[in-house]
Amino acid sequence: MYITADTIERWIKEDVPYIDLTTLALGIGSVKGIIRFTAREFTVLSGVEEVLKIFNKLEINPTHSMPSGSIVDKGDVFIEAEGLAANLHMAWKVSLNILEYSSGIATRTKRMVDQAIAANPDIAVVATRKSFPGTKELAVKSIIAGGAFPHRLGLSETILIFQQHREFLGDIHALMQELKQLKAKSCEKKIIVEVESLEEARLLAESGIDGLQFDKIPANDLKIMVEQIRGINPKITLIGAGGINESNIAEYAATGIDAIATTAMYFGKPSDIGVKMEKF
Amino acid sequence: MYITADTIERWIKEDVPYIDLTTLALGIGSVKGIIRFTAREFTVLSGVEEVLKIFNKLEINPTHSMPSGSIVDKGDVFIEAEGLAANLHMAWKVSLNILEYSSGIATRTKRMVDQAIAANPDIAVVATRKSFPGTKELAVKSIIAGGAFPHRLGLSETILIFQQHREFLGDIHALMQELKQLKAKSCEKKIIVEVESLEEARLLAESGIDGLQFDKIPANDLKIMVEQIRGINPKITLIGAGGINESNIAEYAATGIDAIATTAMYFGKPSDIGVKMEKF
Amino acid sequence: MYITADTIERWIKEDVPYIDLTTLALGIGSVKGIIRFTAREFTVLSGVEEVLKIFNKLEINPTHSMPSGSIVDKGDVFIEAEGLAANLHMAWKVSLNILEYSSGIATRTKRMVDQAIAANPDIAVVATRKSFPGTKELAVKSIIAGGAFPHRLGLSETILIFQQHREFLGDIHALMQELKQLKAKSCEKKIIVEVESLEEARLLAESGIDGLQFDKIPANDLKIMVEQIRGINPKITLIGAGGINESNIAEYAATGIDAIATTAMYFGKPSDIGVKMEKF
Amino acid sequence: MYITADTIERWIKEDVPYIDLTTLALGIGSVKGIIRFTAREFTVLSGVEEVLKIFNKLEINPTHSMPSGSIVDKGDVFIEAEGLAANLHMAWKVSLNILEYSSGIATRTKRMVDQAIAANPDIAVVATRKSFPGTKELAVKSIIAGGAFPHRLGLSETILIFQQHREFLGDIHALMQELKQLKAKSCEKKIIVEVESLEEARLLAESGIDGLQFDKIPANDLKIMVEQIRGINPKITLIGAGGINESNIAEYAATGIDAIATTAMYFGKPSDIGVKMEKF
Amino acid sequence: MYITADTIERWIKEDVPYIDLTTLALGIGSVKGIIRFTAREFTVLSGVEEVLKIFNKLEINPTHSMPSGSIVDKGDVFIEAEGLAANLHMAWKVSLNILEYSSGIATRTKRMVDQAIAANPDIAVVATRKSFPGTKELAVKSIIAGGAFPHRLGLSETILIFQQHREFLGDIHALMQELKQLKAKSCEKKIIVEVESLEEARLLAESGIDGLQFDKIPANDLKIMVEQIRGINPKITLIGAGGINESNIAEYAATGIDAIATTAMYFGKPSDIGVKMEKF
Amino acid sequence: MYITADTIERWIKEDVPYIDLTTLALGIGSVKGIIRFTAREFTVLSGVEEVLKIFNKLEINPTHSMPSGSIVDKGDVFIEAEGLAANLHMAWKVSLNILEYSSGIATRTKRMVDQAIAANPDIAVVATRKSFPGTKELAVKSIIAGGAFPHRLGLSETILIFQQHREFLGDIHALMQELKQLKAKSCEKKIIVEVESLEEARLLAESGIDGLQFDKIPANDLKIMVEQIRGINPKITLIGAGGINESNIAEYAATGIDAIATTAMYFGKPSDIGVKMEKF
Repeated sequence: MYITADTIERWIKEDVPYIDLTTLALGIGSVKGIIRFTAREFTVLSGVEEVLKIFNKLEINPTHSMPSGSIVDKGDVFIEAEGLAANLHMAWKVSLNILEYSSGIATRTKRMVDQAIAANPDIAVVATRKSFPGTKELAVKSIIAGGAFPHRLGLSETILIFQQHREFLGDIHALMQELKQLKAKSCEKKIIVEVESLEEARLLAESGIDGLQFDKIPANDLKIMVEQIRGINPKITLIGAGGINESNIAEYAATGIDAIATTAMYFGKPSDIGVKMEKF
Repeated sequence: MYITADTIERWIKEDVPYIDLTTLALGIGSVKGIIRFTAREFTVLSGVEEVLKIFNKLEINPTHSMPSGSIVDKGDVFIEAEGLAANLHMAWKVSLNILEYSSGIATRTKRMVDQAIAANPDIAVVATRKSFPGTKELAVKSIIAGGAFPHRLGLSETILIFQQHREFLGDIHALMQELKQLKAKSCEKKIIVEVESLEEARLLAESGIDGLQFDKIPANDLKIMVEQIRGINPKITLIGAGGINESNIAEYAATGIDAIATTAMYFGKPSDIGVKMEKF
Repeated sequence: MYITADTIERWIKEDVPYIDLTTLALGIGSVKGIIRFTAREFTVLSGVEEVLKIFNKLEINPTHSMPSGSIVDKGDVFIEAEGLAANLHMAWKVSLNILEYSSGIATRTKRMVDQAIAANPDIAVVATRKSFPGTKELAVKSIIAGGAFPHRLGLSETILIFQQHREFLGDIHALMQELKQLKAKSCEKKIIVEVESLEEARLLAESGIDGLQFDKIPANDLKIMVEQIRGINPKITLIGAGGINESNIAEYAATGIDAIATTAMYFGKPSDIGVKMEKF
Repeated sequence: MYITADTIERWIKEDVPYIDLTTLALGIGSVKGIIRFTAREFTVLSGVEEVLKIFNKLEINPTHSMPSGSIVDKGDVFIEAEGLAANLHMAWKVSLNILEYSSGIATRTKRMVDQAIAANPDIAVVATRKSFPGTKELAVKSIIAGGAFPHRLGLSETILIFQQHREFLGDIHALMQELKQLKAKSCEKKIIVEVESLEEARLLAESGIDGLQFDKIPANDLKIMVEQIRGINPKITLIGAGGINESNIAEYAATGIDAIATTAMYFGKPSDIGVKMEKF
Repeated sequence: MYITADTIERWIKEDVPYIDLTTLALGIGSVKGIIRFTAREFTVLSGVEEVLKIFNKLEINPTHSMPSGSIVDKGDVFIEAEGLAANLHMAWKVSLNILEYSSGIATRTKRMVDQAIAANPDIAVVATRKSFPGTKELAVKSIIAGGAFPHRLGLSETILIFQQHREFLGDIHALMQELKQLKAKSCEKKIIVEVESLEEARLLAESGIDGLQFDKIPANDLKIMVEQIRGINPKITLIGAGGINESNIAEYAATGIDAIATTAMYFGKPSDIGVKMEKF
Repeated sequence: MYITADTIERWIKEDVPYIDLTTLALGIGSVKGIIRFTAREFTVLSGVEEVLKIFNKLEINPTHSMPSGSIVDKGDVFIEAEGLAANLHMAWKVSLNILEYSSGIATRTKRMVDQAIAANPDIAVVATRKSFPGTKELAVKSIIAGGAFPHRLGLSETILIFQQHREFLGDIHALMQELKQLKAKSCEKKIIVEVESLEEARLLAESGIDGLQFDKIPANDLKIMVEQIRGINPKITLIGAGGINESNIAEYAATGIDAIATTAMYFGKPSDIGVKMEKF
């Protein structure tokens, strides 16, 4: 994930549109100091490289850091850096916010992936594109740090047909008719369709679809569907989606699907991270 | 909250860096259709104006919309618009994401504000700057839609002295000594200091500080501190902060403080909003 | 293809960083006029919508236009618009350049697609990502206008393994060993590998790879390879690439591959388009 | 004041949209040279850090520099750096313009602050937001370099009620009625109102307003008003504004107000700075 | 002068990074109102079109406006528009600042041009590129509104050889030797050299230079030089520069030079313009 | 040619909007490697400095590089660098595309310049502004690397009057009448007019025009015209344009014109450059 300098600086300016008035008024800006970020709980780190880029822009020199994806526990210092108080104070909150939100996503992801893998070592946990607009880069970086893969990152390079497309196409038979041409035009991609019933799933599997995404099917129903569809085409890609989260991911992982598409890692409390500065 | 065209378009491109492959491959792009956004639960809307800006960029014409801040309930259609399927599909997910995340913040804010006001009609609920980097504009818009005010939006125009500043200044007496000059230089602002103990609070109140922010003091302890500090200066601004959320905000509102600073509205599930498209 | 206002304006400023000195010095800026774009040869139009966006920014009102993808011939007027001379002169060359370069790509694409389809109606012609940096949006738009599809638009959402990846992985057996896990992690994508020999192609096909891209294999050799690989897996995706252009595309289309990946449409003379302005 | 790389580069490109034709045509670009900036008069420096950022972008290495806020006199060399002639020539004028405009503001600020402080050591000189659009960052940096503080930097974090707001609110009694709720909602800010008459000032002071800004009141009248208003509330913040400049600032400083809000430092001649280059 | 939407919005955000707190806290945002800009003195307008673009972004509808370049006098209303108070307040100061700074430049330019033309009807007044970094577009627009032309806008398309170039080239004979090749390479441009003495001017005129720019030569000395140089080449372009302003421009215009290059219009007080809003 | 970091990063993101999925899925990102760019044919290099900037952004360290303008031949390694596989893969294609397109332009330019100079050592070959929108910086850099100069880079600083201007002005006599004033206003620039007939050329030469650009005149006709026009004014600048390319440039160079304006270098195949990576 390459994050541009422009984005890094937009984050800084979001918090400091002009000056840091408190530091200026106190006259402490030119004192040298150290900043330390410490985990306050089990955390899968994410956003560290971006914080280091912020530090670089603000002439803060890191003396210690652990890369995104590292696992830390209460009390572990994972970034330590030196700079002028003026710069440390500009970097403080934006850095903390990046780390807490990103690591929160990474940590929830890890917990979900661990549960899923325990239930089915071959399953893929893939995160949807339902991230907060403006945060996709950090969101994707964080789900990767936590061990998941992206489901689809945007609209440009995958084919996933929703009911919302089929509204413009006609009924399922219209889609089935279109399929041959669609596969020819897009022979480098898998054609995947979201389905809500076994009947649709069957028809599409028989038509040679590459994959099916089941939306909001209870896990025990899904297990039965998976068996039936695998009977038609054992190589078809089967994805479960809709309402899968930490509380039920193991159950879904055990249904025999290939992948779990979920958004649950994006929501919830940011990780709790402590920051301390001191005079050098 | 003025959000620039550049930000609006950055959100679009985040989801569609190049093309919408599915719509292109299906050949449905030039069919005309309607899109409708419907609440699936009690929701304080936010982000509507930004979605309308996205629609405008994509030549989608709204036929009905309710402004941010409106309260809707399950089944209420709050945006309806017409356009080409190609454009509706580009607008769909980014619009939904904006609405669900923003309205989620607005709805949580409203619940917190309602509780706080019920306990103390004069209290201000103010949201901190702990929003996900890259989302401040939507975050601030949403807390306003929900009835809160911003605590401080950035570092540039308020004076709030944390322990992290005092590290570079010396002990509390150093700060007290600095205070006269600080008040002269910044006579247009209130000087507010974050404190963690009654003793510090007392010393600063006696020195003529404009406001104190109490960090992570249990509500019943805080009530006693407020009385004592009001005894020193009845006009001082007193703010409670740290760990205040839906479960304890009423209790804090009853302590006699002037304002509650909280970040709790930023986290949690996005609002649940339905989208349907149909052929025109 | 959604092109942002920022890009539209960057194109304008590229040609008019400050003012239009000639028009200013001649004092003709406020005269009203008409501008007309006319094909001078067989042309598949592309870039029209972007020119209309430029016109919109410069308060030039179109009175006639044909969409990208339209086929025009010598003498056909395909854009006509009215505005002030000052604005027409700012729009002139940048609009012409967009139209000539984009339509050049679209026209070459159409000629290649037509030849390929004549030889094999099910073949896909896909354009690679070897476009001039800074022009991907217009390039992709233009190959679509000409009837092709993109091969892969960028690195983010497809898996295409080159020799350059295998350098870091080990020999072909290392790749084959990795394959099962790769397919699990990325079950929503086809795994495609670029190969340069039949032996590699065989080994990978037997290992269950989803697709193979043959680089720089002469068409008659390729035909034989395709037959052999289809014998192993009739559903495998086979792509020909490397040196395919207008002179040999029909021959490659007849080899039995599913898709031709080519860059040849990106190079060559822009379309020849005439522009006339006249006083209104 | 953190100025982004994007702004730094926008300044460079403003002067060099494409190439430096003269240097190119003369063929001197690859000769190594030294550039030296020398004060030609008493100057409070500002903009030095931004020039160093320009140098960094252009691979020019500073060998000596004095920070913004430094005071220099005729003949003092305050920046010296080495680089290729091609780069020195690209950096030359834009650097000089930044230094001359910024230092001009800083120097006028210092003269005003010195006069004001001489008349009243506790007074704050605060610069308004009437800077040339597009220059706020350099303007604010420069007034700080000269010893002033910003009045308000933008609309987002201060409350200053003008006649232009009151037009929409009703007469002064409407404002007074609103005041209690306004103070509750914005308890972290001072509520300041611009007034043009003693009568209004009195009414508002009696209503408990936090501050008053007197617009265009002659200094001797203002002195009398200040006394009367202090009689009502000795702690109220009183600001003089409107037409205050180098010729009358001392007089205003002596009126007993807490702060002088002025725009006069923004206008006037840039500082006179000499630049010399020589072959290395 | 085409000014991009991005620049327009950057100006807005410079003044309103997040929200307009005063208007929000007063709760007056949704009231409809009128805004009127009125000249308070003789003014050559500039910046009007940019203000209209700001209005457009903020959904403020102009009902009357006079274009840049118009001459107005005390009491003339030159912009009138309607919108919501929330938007009028966001537009107010940034619009006023644009108009006052730009019109100030235009008005000073007009006074200088008028004086110069009175002394010599064929003279060109050209403004240098010594504008405040970040303001070139408005600066250039304004000098054109006032009747001047740009000298050179940037480094990219003119050849003007300064002493700073000659440092890297050698003495005047080195330059003279280079001249033939320079004229061949750049035959579409005039080659102009800045000179500080008659001797240099003579040598260069005899070598066939296209133009000379005299730096800081007193007007009466310059007159004599001009005659002598014209004796060598009557068609040579002669430019006076350095310290020319409203007080001496007529004198310089009478020396026989072709053009006066000056920066004096950029400095000085902004125009004085009144703004009033009222409830609709 | 100063190319901003923003442009460099836009090129990277054009190819990697989010992540490099193949490298991520293969798990090879953290392996160290070397990348080498090798010429496969006679090539005038261009774009090298931009590739080095991309490398710098991606923490790839160059160990060898040859500057733009260098001439290389088959087998010459001209860039070699080390970095992590993750970064090498992100840099690969965008770097190659920059080098191949830019060097293609430079190489064609060199061939044209060499031919022109052989026919007439004093001739200037100047490239028009007909580059692909979005590529002007690389295009101009490349024609300079190949030994040409830019004709005009944009509209802002040269006066070149086309038929498209004259439409708004009237017939040729209207232009001739305007000429005196035009030369006064723009005395620092050459006034150049594009003509299509000898008659117009004569009239304008007699009126004192500075230069003429002949559009699409066959070389042998042009030769005669040049003689006649030089008879009127031996110092006039004469430019040939329209349809001049590698096949006829020598012929045009021999006509006696001062400059050849051409666009032919912009079109054609990119240079053929090999890239190899290997494990470190």
